[in-house]
Amino acid sequence: MENTRFTDGRVPHPGIRDMFETPRRWQAYLDVEAALALVEAELGIIPVEAAKAIAEAADVDRLDQDRVRREMDRTSHPMMPLVVELSRAVGEEHGGWVHWGATTQNITQTGDLIVLRRAFDVIVSQVGRLLRVAADLADEHAETFMAGRTHGQHALPITFGFKAAAWADELIRHADRLEQLQPRLFVAMTGGAAGTFASLGELGPDVQQAVANRLHLGSMAIPGRSIVDHLAEYVLVLGLLATTGAKIGLEIYTLMATEVGELEEPVPAGTVGSSTMPHKRNPQLAQDVMNISAEIRALVPLALEGAIVGHEGDHAPALLERATRQSSILTGDLLERVHLILDNLGVHADRMRSNVDTSGGLITSEAVMLRLGGFIGRQAAHDVVYDVAQAVVVRGGTFAAHLARNPRVREHLSHGELDTLLEPSGLTGLSAQLARQGASRARERAASLAEGARHTT
Amino acid sequence: MENTRFTDGRVPHPGIRDMFETPRRWQAYLDVEAALALVEAELGIIPVEAAKAIAEAADVDRLDQDRVRREMDRTSHPMMPLVVELSRAVGEEHGGWVHWGATTQNITQTGDLIVLRRAFDVIVSQVGRLLRVAADLADEHAETFMAGRTHGQHALPITFGFKAAAWADELIRHADRLEQLQPRLFVAMTGGAAGTFASLGELGPDVQQAVANRLHLGSMAIPGRSIVDHLAEYVLVLGLLATTGAKIGLEIYTLMATEVGELEEPVPAGTVGSSTMPHKRNPQLAQDVMNISAEIRALVPLALEGAIVGHEGDHAPALLERATRQSSILTGDLLERVHLILDNLGVHADRMRSNVDTSGGLITSEAVMLRLGGFIGRQAAHDVVYDVAQAVVVRGGTFAAHLARNPRVREHLSHGELDTLLEPSGLTGLSAQLARQGASRARERAASLAEGARHTT
Amino acid sequence: MENTRFTDGRVPHPGIRDMFETPRRWQAYLDVEAALALVEAELGIIPVEAAKAIAEAADVDRLDQDRVRREMDRTSHPMMPLVVELSRAVGEEHGGWVHWGATTQNITQTGDLIVLRRAFDVIVSQVGRLLRVAADLADEHAETFMAGRTHGQHALPITFGFKAAAWADELIRHADRLEQLQPRLFVAMTGGAAGTFASLGELGPDVQQAVANRLHLGSMAIPGRSIVDHLAEYVLVLGLLATTGAKIGLEIYTLMATEVGELEEPVPAGTVGSSTMPHKRNPQLAQDVMNISAEIRALVPLALEGAIVGHEGDHAPALLERATRQSSILTGDLLERVHLILDNLGVHADRMRSNVDTSGGLITSEAVMLRLGGFIGRQAAHDVVYDVAQAVVVRGGTFAAHLARNPRVREHLSHGELDTLLEPSGLTGLSAQLARQGASRARERAASLAEGARHTT
Amino acid sequence: MENTRFTDGRVPHPGIRDMFETPRRWQAYLDVEAALALVEAELGIIPVEAAKAIAEAADVDRLDQDRVRREMDRTSHPMMPLVVELSRAVGEEHGGWVHWGATTQNITQTGDLIVLRRAFDVIVSQVGRLLRVAADLADEHAETFMAGRTHGQHALPITFGFKAAAWADELIRHADRLEQLQPRLFVAMTGGAAGTFASLGELGPDVQQAVANRLHLGSMAIPGRSIVDHLAEYVLVLGLLATTGAKIGLEIYTLMATEVGELEEPVPAGTVGSSTMPHKRNPQLAQDVMNISAEIRALVPLALEGAIVGHEGDHAPALLERATRQSSILTGDLLERVHLILDNLGVHADRMRSNVDTSGGLITSEAVMLRLGGFIGRQAAHDVVYDVAQAVVVRGGTFAAHLARNPRVREHLSHGELDTLLEPSGLTGLSAQLARQGASRARERAASLAEGARHTT
Repeated sequence: MENTRFTDGRVPHPGIRDMFETPRRWQAYLDVEAALALVEAELGIIPVEAAKAIAEAADVDRLDQDRVRREMDRTSHPMMPLVVELSRAVGEEHGGWVHWGATTQNITQTGDLIVLRRAFDVIVSQVGRLLRVAADLADEHAETFMAGRTHGQHALPITFGFKAAAWADELIRHADRLEQLQPRLFVAMTGGAAGTFASLGELGPDVQQAVANRLHLGSMAIPGRSIVDHLAEYVLVLGLLATTGAKIGLEIYTLMATEVGELEEPVPAGTVGSSTMPHKRNPQLAQDVMNISAEIRALVPLALEGAIVGHEGDHAPALLERATRQSSILTGDLLERVHLILDNLGVHADRMRSNVDTSGGLITSEAVMLRLGGFIGRQAAHDVVYDVAQAVVVRGGTFAAHLARNPRVREHLSHGELDTLLEPSGLTGLSAQLARQGASRARERAASLAEGARHTT
Repeated sequence: MENTRFTDGRVPHPGIRDMFETPRRWQAYLDVEAALALVEAELGIIPVEAAKAIAEAADVDRLDQDRVRREMDRTSHPMMPLVVELSRAVGEEHGGWVHWGATTQNITQTGDLIVLRRAFDVIVSQVGRLLRVAADLADEHAETFMAGRTHGQHALPITFGFKAAAWADELIRHADRLEQLQPRLFVAMTGGAAGTFASLGELGPDVQQAVANRLHLGSMAIPGRSIVDHLAEYVLVLGLLATTGAKIGLEIYTLMATEVGELEEPVPAGTVGSSTMPHKRNPQLAQDVMNISAEIRALVPLALEGAIVGHEGDHAPALLERATRQSSILTGDLLERVHLILDNLGVHADRMRSNVDTSGGLITSEAVMLRLGGFIGRQAAHDVVYDVAQAVVVRGGTFAAHLARNPRVREHLSHGELDTLLEPSGLTGLSAQLARQGASRARERAASLAEGARHTT
Repeated sequence: MENTRFTDGRVPHPGIRDMFETPRRWQAYLDVEAALALVEAELGIIPVEAAKAIAEAADVDRLDQDRVRREMDRTSHPMMPLVVELSRAVGEEHGGWVHWGATTQNITQTGDLIVLRRAFDVIVSQVGRLLRVAADLADEHAETFMAGRTHGQHALPITFGFKAAAWADELIRHADRLEQLQPRLFVAMTGGAAGTFASLGELGPDVQQAVANRLHLGSMAIPGRSIVDHLAEYVLVLGLLATTGAKIGLEIYTLMATEVGELEEPVPAGTVGSSTMPHKRNPQLAQDVMNISAEIRALVPLALEGAIVGHEGDHAPALLERATRQSSILTGDLLERVHLILDNLGVHADRMRSNVDTSGGLITSEAVMLRLGGFIGRQAAHDVVYDVAQAVVVRGGTFAAHLARNPRVREHLSHGELDTLLEPSGLTGLSAQLARQGASRARERAASLAEGARHTT
Repeated sequence: MENTRFTDGRVPHPGIRDMFETPRRWQAYLDVEAALALVEAELGIIPVEAAKAIAEAADVDRLDQDRVRREMDRTSHPMMPLVVELSRAVGEEHGGWVHWGATTQNITQTGDLIVLRRAFDVIVSQVGRLLRVAADLADEHAETFMAGRTHGQHALPITFGFKAAAWADELIRHADRLEQLQPRLFVAMTGGAAGTFASLGELGPDVQQAVANRLHLGSMAIPGRSIVDHLAEYVLVLGLLATTGAKIGLEIYTLMATEVGELEEPVPAGTVGSSTMPHKRNPQLAQDVMNISAEIRALVPLALEGAIVGHEGDHAPALLERATRQSSILTGDLLERVHLILDNLGVHADRMRSNVDTSGGLITSEAVMLRLGGFIGRQAAHDVVYDVAQAVVVRGGTFAAHLARNPRVREHLSHGELDTLLEPSGLTGLSAQLARQGASRARERAASLAEGARHTT
């Protein structure tokens, strides 16, 4: 696969794409076949010797992969040729016990979940890493003064740490979602062709549970092939995580705009922004993050469509195989980039400070209104300050000058008081405190994530 | 709103649409304003008398709603005129303390969550009701024999109870998801214009927590206006729930097809299927369910787009207000219909039994293969039975006849054994057991849902 | 329907919503019934007197609408009760000839297309109006100097007229698409229950053509009820049109940001931006435009799903009825707002000029590179200017100063030449010319649209 | 790329994927660079000798592709290293004139359109081929009697040729859409960094037109980098085409169901349907078609998002590069499969005939109603036949028997007449005629498509 994004060449792959390569998926399928055989031997369903032989032969490097590929083409079947080849490798005597009582989807869905869990673990650890770097930003810039903006317009001052803490806050919830999803998602199935344990009979649930134990998975309550809501949910959770990615990307992109210049994503020396405009330093990472996020989100409807399965199974789950794989790879790419941005973010505190003044003092209007409201009531104060502030925009001049000319303002607020009120640096509220608390919660969550990961793997 | 679906006239509305009517949303906003005032009085921020007066006046029936509407048109503001009118109702002395320290989105988002929780409660109780009716079907039809189908083709026999239990199984997980989402979703915010408690200051977090307590909500860790991932998550969870609805609808639709005729959704006397074909009995409920599901799922990308908010707030959350409302109403409509279908479902066991024979005994091919496999190995047996079975389809004749002519089959299986193997009724595996266990789990989940609901409301 | 957008109160509705109200849809259905009866009489299928009576009675105001509604609830049928009521109004003798040979979808789909064409005409005229106002902006500001930006960074100077001409350019293609779609979209169907003219027989195609002629519609080549790709296409074309809306909205939003301040959408006196920050002047129209665009685009997947119809007809087309209606209403709302913005747009040419200087002369880097390239080759020049420009950003200072210190630059370019090259006002290329040509093409297209509309209605 | 669909191994690739491989895309870029140089030489902008040297060197096989890849990684730039390498290949004297006056997106977007046109040509020829095979089916089966079904229930009889003609009818319109899109889609751009011809000046439009002529493309009216609606439109048209694919796939899937058995997609000998159920013959092609269609449609929202470009260009168009490529590849795969299905479709006319009888004569209810309506009026007749028909379903028995017992029926219709009316074979209306006319129109369209293709390439 060629690079198709600006930043493909300089951002390390988190390795998720490789996990889904065919030999590794086949190995996971073989692992399931081996677990199945061993369990069936334990339960007296197949001979112990056969199980041993199968477990030993279940190594993708010992199989003739080319033959498997050719046979898959000939038979149009995604699994059968691998079973045949495994049987062949096991040999005459025991080969017949391979895949006993299982249907294809049992092996592929369970095997793909083994693969998916590896991707999941990477993603969880990336989220943990991001939590820590967002926490660092929140702490370091807990008091870095800047304009807060709503609807693209100056609202009230905040600190940059507060903004970073808000990012961490979303990431904490994404960590919670991933954790809650986990027991639903990673479940083994050996229910056979119709999900009824028809060929394993009474021992079916025991076989499934024991296979699940061997593979460190849960066990489906009903091993129906039409039941895939847990796979769709995974894509949805990644889709939601991707909105936080896009949000951070959009913020970097916007605050890096020439006229704003408050943040700068890392631009390594040698980076070319344009073939014709040598000065260009583009927010390439931030933009790639926004695009990757869009691509992840575009998989969500596909996943939902894939969850509407007819009868006891049909083609729809194949959409989920695709959507879970693609969304995993893309999420890895996205989180890697967000981390790279935040870990090396240029924060221009001077520009943040000077930009606050762009709005000519108006950013303090709430404070003036509230003080005035103490005398004449909140609504009346809103009306007075509204008229003054709108006049500033329409007719020009500073907020201070217009206020000083207003009779109702002059009646209640002295020059000195006005000067104090018009100083924006006091108006960041609890920004710093929320930033530091947010950082602390983010670090705790990252620690508990790592702890959880240690226990499950 | 006119009826735009076949079944709008005969399916009772669950009442969710009404909850979102403007006067009820305004009342919720007034409830937040009242809670805010009372809390601020408790904490010494505003006079106690003012708070009392505000709480008393915060009744939508006592306000001039027409004036509020006119002013909203004039000012293009979705909240301010309600605040002004509330101030007016409170009167000169205390009116100025209305909305103290709050920004519009604090009131609307918190108020809308009060409304949303009512819708949520209805949806949860509908899911509980559905769990019970699916459990009843699973129990009652635990042994109702029918064809299992994969890829639209006969696979192995199952029972209808097994199918119903698979529906219940998904619903159990949806109940889990709704429950896990709840503490993230229902959270109050009073962080003010930039989410920093700028106007409430040090007391801000206490105010928010106390307001949350009064309204039986949680409290946002960081009350940022750009933080709305929890609202988007709600729409995603409903989107996923809607796939189970579509799946059930699709199954009814397919199994009610003229050639299949195994199920029939209730067709009340008087229902007209066609203006020109008097005989038509269409699966109207099932089809409406599929359409409503599609509409809910179409809101999911909108919700994800709504979660990508710029700076400290912008227009995106308004998409979520729309998507949460619409998805709630549609989900109520969907669940009501699914319940109506399942609660009165016509199950034609005779047709189910006779349809199994349509595939001329081939539905037993796995059983024959496994028995034969005991002698010649699984793969070899697959090859033998494959050849026989494909010949049945291509050249005609019964599976029994073709098998009886095959030398390798004759070598290992007697006529009597073949007769037994070819009887499909013994091939449902653990269908009945899984059905009854599923029913039992569904009932337990429904009970714990109801219990949970009793505690939170 | 209450206002749910900031700007709902002050933006006039284009009237599309009203067109879809039930009585007007019913009237359209009655118009189809009347046309059908008259045509059938002409062709000798039903008595002439019956047709006259039907045509006379086919007036929604003469029917008992409440009864129709009640019966629709009872029968779950969206059309039959209207047919019954029309028969009743026609009376004993001729009432039996109402709806002769037609199936419900024939009447509703054809009738809904009559309604849809009215919405379509409004949308086309709105596009025409937008073309003219974009043309005016392009002309008026053909030489209004401003920064061109790519990837959020200054690229090269442009003029604002050039930007407006690019908007008009897209609108011209949308007009072309709407025009090309028209003959596919507005087609009558009277093929009956299975689309085969089973009840009309040999005369079927003549009936359909004559009905189409009476209703100023085309005639479906195959009147199949499963054929609805033309309806889906309509929603797709509106979805694409909505991207241009979002693009314009996004541009206004961004260029109105406090730090940029180059454009301002109209903010009528009295508009309140915030309940707590009296100074706020938010880009409400632009933001509503972006949200409406998102809602229109969210209907596109629904429309595509609605086009996948099973057998000779099923539930899917009902999704299209919904999607065509909703997308029409939303598109009307969107275009009205875009027009309002552009027609009263505040253009701050001084701010545009001063913002160009924000990037310290770097916006001229291409010009310097090309001149230098004439001496040392394009690539070498890129390398030289790249090093200089990156140094400006990383180490500070002006582009002019850094250039003047570079030996290779000094070797080939004199101080005077550099001064000239560094003056950005000469670097807008053909902006003015493209703006004026674009304006001219937009006006021609608007004129031909109006001409086309005159002929078709 | 491994096979990830059942049918990947046995369906020939239409070759579209290969077209997008990096060396072929680079060659297209080099073709644009060559055309640009030659045109610039003609117009006196660069030396003729330089243009000759560039055109000669612009051969991907003569470049050091590894170096280009390495440099792309280092610079994060998708084009610049190719320009540098081309300059190097051209050599000292003339290399400096490579890429003169162009910006990256000019070359990549124009070059990618050269590539896309090749994919487009394949798709158009696939549509032509499909039109012919659908026409053959429509002709051959113009009188092949079968049940028409609406809402999954028997409606009226049709012929299979009628159904095939309806498929062809949609394909004809898709051909029209592709043809109308073509002049908008394939347009060259050389407007430079901001789209204003800043570096080419007055000669800019002539350069672009001449480059376009050389590359057999149109020329953008305004060569803005933010103008990409034409690229998004392409994805939309393919998305719509994909709904017809899904519709055909769904129909095959449904009519191949065990209980229906009217159609069978080709199942080559050796195909394995299941690893555990040797009898399985699954509609693999039809199901892959439905899945591919879903994947194409999932790209449509991405394409719409990609069309919302900020300022004079940003990251959004990169989404379109991806969406146009992916949708092209998927559409090629889809059409290939649909062709394979239809070209070798098993049509079981006997089963079609016998299935009609499944509904016990009710399929004739419209005919009975219309005849009776001639005596007692349409509405009264509907009521009578409705009661009879519903009784058949609810109480059992044949339609004939119930009709014969009804007094109003007996009053007007003799036994002989009833027998005739109840014979479904006469109720296919104009199915055969519409099938043959549809076939004829499809063949004409295919011929004109081929003709058009001959002229444009």
